[in-house]
Amino acid sequence: MVEAYLIYASSDREPNLFYWGHFRAPDPFLALKINEKTIAVVSTLEYGRCKKGSTFSEVLLWSDVLQAAVDQAVENNCCKIILHLQKAYQISSFTIPDDFPAHLYETLRKLVPIKFDAVYFQTQRQFKSASEVEQIKTACQLTSQAILYARTILKKSCTDTSQPFLYYRRKVLTSERLRSAIECYCLKKGGHCAGTIVSCSQQAADPHCEGTGPLRANEFIVIDVFPQLNPSGYYGDMTRTFLKGVASLRQKRLFLCVQACQKELIRRIRPGVNTKDLMQFAQNYFEQKGFGLRKTKGICEGFIHSVGHGLGLGLHEYPSVGINSVLLEPNMVFTVEPGLYFHELGGVRIEDVVQVTSTGCQLLSRCPYQWIL
Amino acid sequence: MVEAYLIYASSDREPNLFYWGHFRAPDPFLALKINEKTIAVVSTLEYGRCKKGSTFSEVLLWSDVLQAAVDQAVENNCCKIILHLQKAYQISSFTIPDDFPAHLYETLRKLVPIKFDAVYFQTQRQFKSASEVEQIKTACQLTSQAILYARTILKKSCTDTSQPFLYYRRKVLTSERLRSAIECYCLKKGGHCAGTIVSCSQQAADPHCEGTGPLRANEFIVIDVFPQLNPSGYYGDMTRTFLKGVASLRQKRLFLCVQACQKELIRRIRPGVNTKDLMQFAQNYFEQKGFGLRKTKGICEGFIHSVGHGLGLGLHEYPSVGINSVLLEPNMVFTVEPGLYFHELGGVRIEDVVQVTSTGCQLLSRCPYQWIL
Repeated sequence: MVEAYLIYASSDREPNLFYWGHFRAPDPFLALKINEKTIAVVSTLEYGRCKKGSTFSEVLLWSDVLQAAVDQAVENNCCKIILHLQKAYQISSFTIPDDFPAHLYETLRKLVPIKFDAVYFQTQRQFKSASEVEQIKTACQLTSQAILYARTILKKSCTDTSQPFLYYRRKVLTSERLRSAIECYCLKKGGHCAGTIVSCSQQAADPHCEGTGPLRANEFIVIDVFPQLNPSGYYGDMTRTFLKGVASLRQKRLFLCVQACQKELIRRIRPGVNTKDLMQFAQNYFEQKGFGLRKTKGICEGFIHSVGHGLGLGLHEYPSVGINSVLLEPNMVFTVEPGLYFHELGGVRIEDVVQVTSTGCQLLSRCPYQWIL
Repeated sequence: MVEAYLIYASSDREPNLFYWGHFRAPDPFLALKINEKTIAVVSTLEYGRCKKGSTFSEVLLWSDVLQAAVDQAVENNCCKIILHLQKAYQISSFTIPDDFPAHLYETLRKLVPIKFDAVYFQTQRQFKSASEVEQIKTACQLTSQAILYARTILKKSCTDTSQPFLYYRRKVLTSERLRSAIECYCLKKGGHCAGTIVSCSQQAADPHCEGTGPLRANEFIVIDVFPQLNPSGYYGDMTRTFLKGVASLRQKRLFLCVQACQKELIRRIRPGVNTKDLMQFAQNYFEQKGFGLRKTKGICEGFIHSVGHGLGLGLHEYPSVGINSVLLEPNMVFTVEPGLYFHELGGVRIEDVVQVTSTGCQLLSRCPYQWIL
């Protein structure tokens, strides 16, 4: 008897499943992991491609297995197949991720031993191999080139005396236009972007606002680019905040505070450090400078998100660098992205990616920059 | 006491959640629907943006609710919040989708009345309003422009006498190059693509193969484009199969068979028709022409996928036009995409989007074409 890990998901959406088979499919399919062996059960639509192009140890055809499972006394076809596989591979119990589909779980739990193991699924990808680090580095290099490309456009743009909008090649430079330029740039170099952020002024006060409308002089412009490499699937992630024109004293103070905090955070990263302490450090740092989290007129301002998130086949993965406790270990890879957000002033965020080494960390994204253009 | 629908997901990945609030977020958040009222519970990171930009009736701050829920005797914070909301809104039971996260379900089911309703969540978006149809039409128009753009590139490309590759602007035209051109084209017009298919020759025998390497003369080239409009979130979807050069008799037979089948399918679409019968029709049609589903040397060939899938905020949504039974009703929107795939010959697929009307259907994507270039 053996234990099996079980996933039922689309590998486009579930990096753990993609990690098992390096096979991308838009519709859900079934996969098992028994010791080091991985088994996929896919439809006729995906069968040929999966057999030829995936790294699954074994690829089974859904309709074949369903036929073999005809004796299983359960209505749901997916359950039929799982029960059949249990018998065929002599599986004693199934271990599933927390986000396994609840209805399938509800049917299965009455028929087979099944248990959750969030830690396994959260952490199976946490230590990056040398080749994974290389992929993330490649993605980060692309990200930094894309940021430099955006910077060039901002630098070349100018203002009209009559209004505060930026103009590039005689046309108003909007968030949409700059985003589309950045995303095309990445596409041509094999990186696929979704939701690239180019937000200006008050829009930048919302960290995940993509940004719309004209970019303005003398205001913060936050550019956050996170392309996914095709076909490896690894992400890069980088944010830079620019300002075209003249920065006020308040803007300078805000920017320098975030920049200094990020530098301090990176200096503190090494094995044994608790991510919670990094979060606490950033909170205290901003608090001391008068920029702590607060709610003004029903809106949150100050330092309103966590310090960072794991990066790899997932854009937001383990470890999260927030209020939860995680002890850093070598080859963990995550973003360091403190930011400050104020309704009136906009936002500043600076984000880089680090790999924990045996003694500290190394930056996987590198893009020194002047923020005032 | 009231009943509530409950979702815990990322609205980037769960169209039902996006449908409730028209708010896109990469990380999971909690949302309820009580009669026509929708309530979201989000983190400080998303709170401002969600309050300003979403259509949720009410937006609550996760940390505020958690504080109010301090008395709830359960460890999991998300459960705490749900129990608190149950009390605050006097909720008698929660109804969840099949793919609700299993672990959260397992904790909740011991504390509150909770049930599944796949039909509600599958079908809540099935009848498209006039404005939704307009959005899908816009996305389909973009798709058809992108296909015409790709066709122009193919048409302008030429072959070298020494090898069968296509050349465009003196450089080999690869799947990657044409895909990137198509995706940039869509991006500039507000459509976001992922996984656009440009597959040639034997690669086209796998319907979901994205395609790599040089495109070849005298071979099928399948182009499948499915951009998502930003910010509305609606998809277009269209496939055309081209051939640059001279088609063999077998290639012509295959193409004309798929084309005729698609025409027949579209002619059969009207309210009251069972999608299963459309699937059966296509299967019989291909079978009679000698192109039925078969397994050759362990690989599936012939008609290896379903006739189509619903289209809207999701790329693959309800209704599926396959082996399951669904009675068509006015304002359902789905793709009609028969295809034939043979290992040696490659593949042919032709795909358009239709809206069921009171008497038949109307094409939302329109792109008449010559397939031999």
